[in-house]
Amino acid sequence: MNASEKTEKHQLFAVGNHGRTDAWSKLLLQHPKLGAVAGKQFLGQALGLTGMEVSLNSLATGHAVPFEHGHRKNEELYLFISGEGQMLLDGQVLEVQAGSAVRISPSVLRCWRNTGEEPLVCVVIQAQEHSLTQCTEADGFISSHAPAWPQA
Amino acid sequence: MNASEKTEKHQLFAVGNHGRTDAWSKLLLQHPKLGAVAGKQFLGQALGLTGMEVSLNSLATGHAVPFEHGHRKNEELYLFISGEGQMLLDGQVLEVQAGSAVRISPSVLRCWRNTGEEPLVCVVIQAQEHSLTQCTEADGFISSHAPAWPQA
Repeated sequence: MNASEKTEKHQLFAVGNHGRTDAWSKLLLQHPKLGAVAGKQFLGQALGLTGMEVSLNSLATGHAVPFEHGHRKNEELYLFISGEGQMLLDGQVLEVQAGSAVRISPSVLRCWRNTGEEPLVCVVIQAQEHSLTQCTEADGFISSHAPAWPQA
Repeated sequence: MNASEKTEKHQLFAVGNHGRTDAWSKLLLQHPKLGAVAGKQFLGQALGLTGMEVSLNSLATGHAVPFEHGHRKNEELYLFISGEGQMLLDGQVLEVQAGSAVRISPSVLRCWRNTGEEPLVCVVIQAQEHSLTQCTEADGFISSHAPAWPQA
């Protein structure tokens, strides 16, 4: 089952359901160069994301990503949800654990491994470096009427 | 304690530590218009993010965000990590739970509430709509040498 089979598309929003983080180890990505990659799924295509790409990741105990990669244009954020591990960033080792948030500039060669006793679960976000021109209260506006939740 | 106190900055990467998701209820945001907001923290300023803004969120049982908001330029993705709730999207109710990923176009008025028995934990990502020009294998490159992890 791929993401699009689980995604309901609407005109102005889209929803996918990918299960609890302890089930992300069962996700399976078909990568054009790397073949089948267990414990990984991209969300962008199925949801129609246009400003970011996001992946869900679960790396098994004792496993390491077998290569380093960098980017040309995109900043990445690795947000670790559970587990313990290390990142290798241009040769520098960084300890990570549940709640670690790691911003990485495009050129940095990066890799990560699970050094703990449970799956290392993380959300990885790509967005084009320097593309955000405003955000939060500068970009958002609050409706003048109260939320109209349906009556129970 | 604010995010910058917990953030270690490097030239090409930056790291923050925000704890396990079950502790995100203790996060405290000082919002310029809304005042103190419990269970929320933005990561962008402390990490130096330039292509996205990301917040960690934990909404207590029985609570609802008390207003709807929209955006001018930014697409949002709500990635629910645990709990059960609902989103209100331009008046349409959407059920969400652990693993739900909801992409929302800028103009949509949005709000959410916790209808479950545990905190509703989600990661919210903002990026400028249509700003991503390439990603993943089109933007990334793999190093020609194997990762040089230090010997244990």
